[in-house]
Amino acid sequence: MEKEKAKDLGFAIGQMLEKVRQQKPLLHHITNFVVMNDTANVTLHIGALPVMAHAREEVAEMVAAAGALVLNPGTLTPAWVESMIVAGRRANELGIPIVLDPVGAGATTLRTQSNLRLLEGLKIAVLRGNSGEIGAVSGLGGEVKGVESIKDVEDPEEVARTVARKYGLTVAITGKRDVISDGQRVIGVDNGHAMLKTITGTGCMATTMIAAFAAVERDYLLAATAGLVCYGLAAEMAASGAKGPASFKAALFDNIYNLTPAQIAEGARAYYL
Amino acid sequence: MEKEKAKDLGFAIGQMLEKVRQQKPLLHHITNFVVMNDTANVTLHIGALPVMAHAREEVAEMVAAAGALVLNPGTLTPAWVESMIVAGRRANELGIPIVLDPVGAGATTLRTQSNLRLLEGLKIAVLRGNSGEIGAVSGLGGEVKGVESIKDVEDPEEVARTVARKYGLTVAITGKRDVISDGQRVIGVDNGHAMLKTITGTGCMATTMIAAFAAVERDYLLAATAGLVCYGLAAEMAASGAKGPASFKAALFDNIYNLTPAQIAEGARAYYL
Amino acid sequence: MEKEKAKDLGFAIGQMLEKVRQQKPLLHHITNFVVMNDTANVTLHIGALPVMAHAREEVAEMVAAAGALVLNPGTLTPAWVESMIVAGRRANELGIPIVLDPVGAGATTLRTQSNLRLLEGLKIAVLRGNSGEIGAVSGLGGEVKGVESIKDVEDPEEVARTVARKYGLTVAITGKRDVISDGQRVIGVDNGHAMLKTITGTGCMATTMIAAFAAVERDYLLAATAGLVCYGLAAEMAASGAKGPASFKAALFDNIYNLTPAQIAEGARAYYL
Repeated sequence: MEKEKAKDLGFAIGQMLEKVRQQKPLLHHITNFVVMNDTANVTLHIGALPVMAHAREEVAEMVAAAGALVLNPGTLTPAWVESMIVAGRRANELGIPIVLDPVGAGATTLRTQSNLRLLEGLKIAVLRGNSGEIGAVSGLGGEVKGVESIKDVEDPEEVARTVARKYGLTVAITGKRDVISDGQRVIGVDNGHAMLKTITGTGCMATTMIAAFAAVERDYLLAATAGLVCYGLAAEMAASGAKGPASFKAALFDNIYNLTPAQIAEGARAYYL
Repeated sequence: MEKEKAKDLGFAIGQMLEKVRQQKPLLHHITNFVVMNDTANVTLHIGALPVMAHAREEVAEMVAAAGALVLNPGTLTPAWVESMIVAGRRANELGIPIVLDPVGAGATTLRTQSNLRLLEGLKIAVLRGNSGEIGAVSGLGGEVKGVESIKDVEDPEEVARTVARKYGLTVAITGKRDVISDGQRVIGVDNGHAMLKTITGTGCMATTMIAAFAAVERDYLLAATAGLVCYGLAAEMAASGAKGPASFKAALFDNIYNLTPAQIAEGARAYYL
Repeated sequence: MEKEKAKDLGFAIGQMLEKVRQQKPLLHHITNFVVMNDTANVTLHIGALPVMAHAREEVAEMVAAAGALVLNPGTLTPAWVESMIVAGRRANELGIPIVLDPVGAGATTLRTQSNLRLLEGLKIAVLRGNSGEIGAVSGLGGEVKGVESIKDVEDPEEVARTVARKYGLTVAITGKRDVISDGQRVIGVDNGHAMLKTITGTGCMATTMIAAFAAVERDYLLAATAGLVCYGLAAEMAASGAKGPASFKAALFDNIYNLTPAQIAEGARAYYL
């Protein structure tokens, strides 16, 4: 019966993917320097359009054309955080969903506080981070070294639910099992592959995947699930023939581009918990 | 007879490519964060040397050693545009050709106005953009969403010729057929492949290709044609074995590096219109 | 007997590699935009953890968690150099080794002077550059165009020894033969491949490789040798099947990840000179 439910979710996700490809939403990223190229490519591969724009002078105008706004302070400075606030406020006014990726929260005071400022000053639709990062912004445990979770929160389901309720948003804690909650419902996603840990920016790419679906599906619990299922499934398929991280990454990108609703219906491993 | 003409152009382009590889001109880029790595690699693959330098304090000195200057305000801020002006003025003094890529012109006021400022304040050798971007800087139609042309200008030949005359430069409007004009002559380039639309930065890479040839060929109509023929041809060859965007991109880069005058003479599809 | 000595060094390097993979040191990079993604990936592939952080407000806190600090002013501005100084001072206080990559020193006054400021204001563990760059910071010859050495120093062994003594650090001059000296001992590394010159950021990646070993081995002459042997060996293996620069780069990354102590013991070509 679990398998049946997964198939139902998988079928719904396949339909969402077709919506992304038909609507081609613009994903406005204010993101870090490390992943700009990769997340722009992932945006195109899943079927959306990327734009990277961070100048305070243009972000409010740019976001108005977007289907979703990605805020990723992975190489933050205070000036970039200001631009994120400006863009985020405009997105909130226009009802455009914001996906926040609190890269490295917990590693420094600047990162923790900047992410809290974004969380508290803006209406965020989806917050996606690793276990240590979500622990850091919630004060519920976990530990971060650089941008890596080196100590996970003890009960991710409980943490996800608590943070979701506190801020009125959907939380996705990614890891071996991804745990997603909107405060009421909780979904676990078992798609993914250990090879993802061998390349940089995999969390940031997962965030972009979620944003593509958030632009076409207003039930953000389902949108986040869709992004993580598609991403994890593409990674699983990529791992089989890979000789190492670089060939894995190339196959991951190719598979995101080639992903079909039939593959998703067959391979999705997402369950209500 | 069209085919004969194409062969003549192809032969000339092969000779220009050999000049690039012999002279190894330095291409000074002031460009966007998304494509810095890709355009530095493309610079090396076609046979030139890349440098990325944007500090106001050094750009005038750096550009003095360059064979061409690429200005690409794809992730612009006002401070970066200032550096572009400083570098551009010095390039103009020294007779070093400037290639401008007006990324996202038309998407925001900042982008449109900054590109107009560069066009009007500097002597540009080649302006390369997609149809929407060239439409935006000329006021002759077209529409841009993010950095994508979502509505092309109606008559690209006429627009190219008009913009070229207005600013006294060579215009390249890239798309399914690239249209290049210096205000008098108009060349169409049919090389290229639809897979180029599946990866980010393809326009920026085309601009870098043009800059490599502009550094060795002062007839900028021919230089722009050479860049676009070589780029499009490498893309065509890359598409045949590609399993998706990432394997296509790797093959594109490999093919740019391996491109021979014989392949160009055989495969060039460039015609005076 | 030379071969025997190389085997001894190779055996020691294999052991160091296992230490990197066990300890997974954090490598804090303040580096250039062109290579951020590549050097983060290389950090992961060799077995360490990357973080890229440049905000003056957080670098002192971030570096405190690091095993090594990489300073690479390849796309410098004065503000970034300030952050490097702040991070470097804290690293010095804590005894965390700093690896400096003087990208483009000699190309502009800003680059030469900024690198001299870092060299003179901080205690650097390893200085790695191409021949022209090391010549420029030492005033001992060499010439740089953009970021390329276009005229090498005449006697790299002598230059390496002299610079090492002057600043009390280990110098690695990379090229066809890498020359490494701590002022007393001199090691030559013959691993590497000409294909490295066809892609961007290969010097920067070599610097990251050195930093991974400097984080686990306080004899920086050996650490630098280890980084360059592993990097060069991975490049040699990558070159055999490569069809061009992009497939070479992917194989290089895969090989760094898959490198074994046995391969190193067999393939290391490092000799005391």
